[in-house]
Amino acid sequence: MRRTRFDRWPCPIARATDLIGDWWTPIILRNAFAGQKRFDEFQESLGVSRAILTNRLNRLVKEGLMEKVAYSERPARYEYRLTEKGLDFWQVLAAMWRWGEDWLWKDGRAPVKLIDRETGADIHPEVIDSNTGKKLDIRQTSVALRKRGKKSASPTMKEGHL
Amino acid sequence: MRRTRFDRWPCPIARATDLIGDWWTPIILRNAFAGQKRFDEFQESLGVSRAILTNRLNRLVKEGLMEKVAYSERPARYEYRLTEKGLDFWQVLAAMWRWGEDWLWKDGRAPVKLIDRETGADIHPEVIDSNTGKKLDIRQTSVALRKRGKKSASPTMKEGHL
Repeated sequence: MRRTRFDRWPCPIARATDLIGDWWTPIILRNAFAGQKRFDEFQESLGVSRAILTNRLNRLVKEGLMEKVAYSERPARYEYRLTEKGLDFWQVLAAMWRWGEDWLWKDGRAPVKLIDRETGADIHPEVIDSNTGKKLDIRQTSVALRKRGKKSASPTMKEGHL
Repeated sequence: MRRTRFDRWPCPIARATDLIGDWWTPIILRNAFAGQKRFDEFQESLGVSRAILTNRLNRLVKEGLMEKVAYSERPARYEYRLTEKGLDFWQVLAAMWRWGEDWLWKDGRAPVKLIDRETGADIHPEVIDSNTGKKLDIRQTSVALRKRGKKSASPTMKEGHL
């Protein structure tokens, strides 16, 4: 049964949810960021079924986050490479990392941390408003329509206090 | 059929995925950030089934992102309020917003934008390393174990280049 689709909603969060809500997708992307490229690498390291992995990789290609590139002709072999759109998704995974690290361990200590490759310094992803350089504050945030008078198709995506 | 669970994996991204991967959950949280609190508000604005909504809200309460608070005794009425843990999830939704806004509209123009409530200035969520104030660069990022010698249970969460 196909679940409710959010990919035509006028809200960026809803559309991103449609992609992330495909079980396994963020994990596969995480492994791609860790340098994995080949189907068998993903499959063996994650223990995911070949059918699900095929489905998720095909969607990531279709949505333009990855491209399937032949790296050998005989035998024909392909690898999956992150595109610019896929690479930019690191911002979402990094925000998930930070929130998960802060809140999803009972003792507050995730077993892994992000570090700078060269300096070894801890990396703490944080979401700011790049226009002001300040941390986001939901109480200061509203949603506005880009074009006046254009009706939003989403029941809740209207102008006003977010 | 319950899908593969990621909520005990040692990776913060995997654990956050377990929560986000519950179809509808980020959308419900988005509406909570927009000020919705009551079951019927969520249900009517989203058109989601009562069974799914009950399931998602119960999980959000169980995971500590929301609390169910009685606001009336006769008749007994409850509302769902974001906790500190839930409020902090705005960082993840904001990163999803930004990425979705940048990549999920063909003409590059999402119909909605985030603005500052008071000044009306555009808000552009961006993920930085709060230790350096710089944009994240995946090529500069590695994963390290917090404690030396402790084995990771996740097949891919090992030290090394992310």
